[in-house]
Amino acid sequence: MSAYIALERRFKRIADLGGAAAVLHWDQAAMMPKGGNAARGEQLAALGGVMHEILTAEATAELMEAARAEPLDVWQASNLKLIEERYTRATALPQDLVEAKARATNHCEMAWRQARADDDYASLRPHLEEVLRLTREAATLQGEKLGLDPYAALLDQFQPGVDEAAIDALFEPLQDQLPALIEARIATQPAPERPGGPFPKAQQKALATNLMARLGFDFDHGRLDESTHPFCGGTPSDIRITTRYEEHETVSALMGVLHETGHALYEAGLPEPWRGQPVGKSHGMAIHESQSLIIEMQACRSPAFLRYLSGRLGETFGQQRAFEPENLVALYTHVEKGLIRVDADELTYPLHIVLRYRLEKALLAGDLDLRDLPGAWRDGMRELLGITPETDREGCMQDIHWPVGAFGYFPNYTLGGLLAAQLFQAAERQLPALLAEIEKGRFAPLRQWLRANVHEKASSVPMQTLIEEATGSRLDTAAFLAHARGRYGTA
Amino acid sequence: MSAYIALERRFKRIADLGGAAAVLHWDQAAMMPKGGNAARGEQLAALGGVMHEILTAEATAELMEAARAEPLDVWQASNLKLIEERYTRATALPQDLVEAKARATNHCEMAWRQARADDDYASLRPHLEEVLRLTREAATLQGEKLGLDPYAALLDQFQPGVDEAAIDALFEPLQDQLPALIEARIATQPAPERPGGPFPKAQQKALATNLMARLGFDFDHGRLDESTHPFCGGTPSDIRITTRYEEHETVSALMGVLHETGHALYEAGLPEPWRGQPVGKSHGMAIHESQSLIIEMQACRSPAFLRYLSGRLGETFGQQRAFEPENLVALYTHVEKGLIRVDADELTYPLHIVLRYRLEKALLAGDLDLRDLPGAWRDGMRELLGITPETDREGCMQDIHWPVGAFGYFPNYTLGGLLAAQLFQAAERQLPALLAEIEKGRFAPLRQWLRANVHEKASSVPMQTLIEEATGSRLDTAAFLAHARGRYGTA
Repeated sequence: MSAYIALERRFKRIADLGGAAAVLHWDQAAMMPKGGNAARGEQLAALGGVMHEILTAEATAELMEAARAEPLDVWQASNLKLIEERYTRATALPQDLVEAKARATNHCEMAWRQARADDDYASLRPHLEEVLRLTREAATLQGEKLGLDPYAALLDQFQPGVDEAAIDALFEPLQDQLPALIEARIATQPAPERPGGPFPKAQQKALATNLMARLGFDFDHGRLDESTHPFCGGTPSDIRITTRYEEHETVSALMGVLHETGHALYEAGLPEPWRGQPVGKSHGMAIHESQSLIIEMQACRSPAFLRYLSGRLGETFGQQRAFEPENLVALYTHVEKGLIRVDADELTYPLHIVLRYRLEKALLAGDLDLRDLPGAWRDGMRELLGITPETDREGCMQDIHWPVGAFGYFPNYTLGGLLAAQLFQAAERQLPALLAEIEKGRFAPLRQWLRANVHEKASSVPMQTLIEEATGSRLDTAAFLAHARGRYGTA
Repeated sequence: MSAYIALERRFKRIADLGGAAAVLHWDQAAMMPKGGNAARGEQLAALGGVMHEILTAEATAELMEAARAEPLDVWQASNLKLIEERYTRATALPQDLVEAKARATNHCEMAWRQARADDDYASLRPHLEEVLRLTREAATLQGEKLGLDPYAALLDQFQPGVDEAAIDALFEPLQDQLPALIEARIATQPAPERPGGPFPKAQQKALATNLMARLGFDFDHGRLDESTHPFCGGTPSDIRITTRYEEHETVSALMGVLHETGHALYEAGLPEPWRGQPVGKSHGMAIHESQSLIIEMQACRSPAFLRYLSGRLGETFGQQRAFEPENLVALYTHVEKGLIRVDADELTYPLHIVLRYRLEKALLAGDLDLRDLPGAWRDGMRELLGITPETDREGCMQDIHWPVGAFGYFPNYTLGGLLAAQLFQAAERQLPALLAEIEKGRFAPLRQWLRANVHEKASSVPMQTLIEEATGSRLDTAAFLAHARGRYGTA
């Protein structure tokens, strides 16, 4: 057996254990009784420990060394490179730093839940200090080994191929042009009517699963369940989507399911022969988010799809004026300057991200003290969106990301939004009937296009190559801004 | 850190990975879409492989060696002994035998499903030959290391402390005395009326969960779901019971849930400080079955409980004549000579086990050729129960146990039944109000007695010691036969 093949087997085992952990995470969120939490934590820690041991074992290094001398095809060579990166990241950190960081983020997450409930930033700050300090230390060590500065090392772990210069160039036109678009939209947009409920849970679920199947979700390889925070988890051959139903509201839960289905289609479309190998995994968080946003924002909030959805809503809950296509368009493209990122619309969302991007860079560089974070947050919100949170709960404590050490994650949401627009524009160019099909509830053309141009490439090529091959150009803001003007412009 | 403590940590990790596997097994049966099966198989194989590697590593042997020289308390000493046995069993078998056995049982199980559906024993036989041969080989090797003959090595792995001589002595009075009791019962028993349905699933579930809670099942530490074959799985702090509802039938599903709840109470009552250690696990399959049967057969099929249940059934589904206490007693103690073990009543069940016990001993000893198994089965059924199966599907192919290599398992069902009677008799002696409490739907006295006398002892003492301490005598048939005469006798 070649060293390369032996290496693949090692990583297949790591992936199988990771798949086990993914199902256990889903179970924890969707099924587990609360008294199972301590045991679940131990199970996941044991799995994580074993995966880390297999990854960082002497044998891994020896096999990598030997595999470098073997003849490899393009995918194998990409796989070896990704394996080396994972090994380098894992071995760059001393064990006591790994453990200190795990402990600190665990404590900080608990402190954050309490501090957010109490609106008490002072009680969170010391925990966040510790997480920031250890994150910086780890990013510095990993960056040194990978030839990246610390923030780039953080960005790169969530989406390989993304760096600060690229983000700066992409975010600048957004912060320049979106505020005026937002003001104009708010001044002229129609006032939508809210649909009148109740919307029984069973009917919401029936409609959601029907739409998921239309999008191409295969229920022989996945499920839809409920959890407090909706997500898409599991493994490519067994995908677990969750949502949350409110009996008085069906509009946003439904769009949430379509969003997660976009993530699911990506996982399901990854190349089967490469399952379990790093090269066969999804490319990163920006690409992943582009797949949920191309379904949610580009396809399913389009007037074409909303005409289709209008009929389905009427069939399910009985026809009412709020389900008329024009009203659905008004509802699903309503713009509002709000304080909370997860409630934000397509137009204001990027500015929430710009704020977090600026602040996390400053925090990591030591240019912003955590003491001054609440004020900096308020100033930023005022500058970017013209509104000011009155509490830190609605300000710098609203997100879980920093308390759990996920610095470098936020930009991916907006990179995903830009990419979704760019991919959809390219798909429309190549498939002139795309929107006409979507208006009939037919997603096969879009799905097949995404499968060929994104899903099946997995992690085999660099991000910009993937984007250029699919769209003809590198990632930029042109498609997104054109889309924003088309959908929200007053022209 | 002492070697013993280091050893405990190793086994805690194995137990955590085992807990992960238990949840994945539950998910596979109760939640997983069918397309997830291949990936699940790989996840479980990876977990099993890692657990085996940790167990059989050089480091385990070194720590055991060093721990033997350390001062240990009674539980620690028992734990070390159990650890040594697990290590001995795992290292007794060469890797190629372990793999050949896993492959053979896997193929044989698939062949069995098909052969049973087709009633085609000839297509099963070569697979069963292979499983039998490898089981015998493994049992011989493990027996040599443990100082046990091969069949004893098989018995001991499911219930430590059980051997052939003990089983022979216990089964003899059963096969002598039960046939006459069965004949007499059938000749004189009242004809029960079947309750008229439908029984909506939601109502069945509501009643089942209500009764589970009364028995002491803690829904903060467990769930009730559905699967084709009901079982009790998960981990002691997160117990997953499954059942199967039929809308036209509620009587047997309900008793099935109570049976599994008995298993669950045992798991939940295991001593918390010893969770994750071999000494803190349930004692074996005979003791486990005694805990389900003491709930199902001794407590819940008693006239006292059936008077209580009568009221609950009427409240749930509306009162009807079939729910009258006398009719419920007739229903739940109805005796019938049937071909299928899993459908058998309390009185005929032991004879199904006696047959299997005789045959598996003969198969392993080489005294019975698999070619002659169908005939030997028919002859045995005729002798023991006076009925003869017309097909092998209803004969020697009805159970999954032998195809998956579980020789030595069957006796535990009846040992559990004997022990349940003996424990219940002892509990009644010590708690005169026991049945009066059960008649009010109060199970706390029984549960507390079982916790103190069985659950909390876990695997800390030999089986016969546990039984003697709880009941005053070694395991025998007196209590069961007295119970059988009391419940089914004509006197």
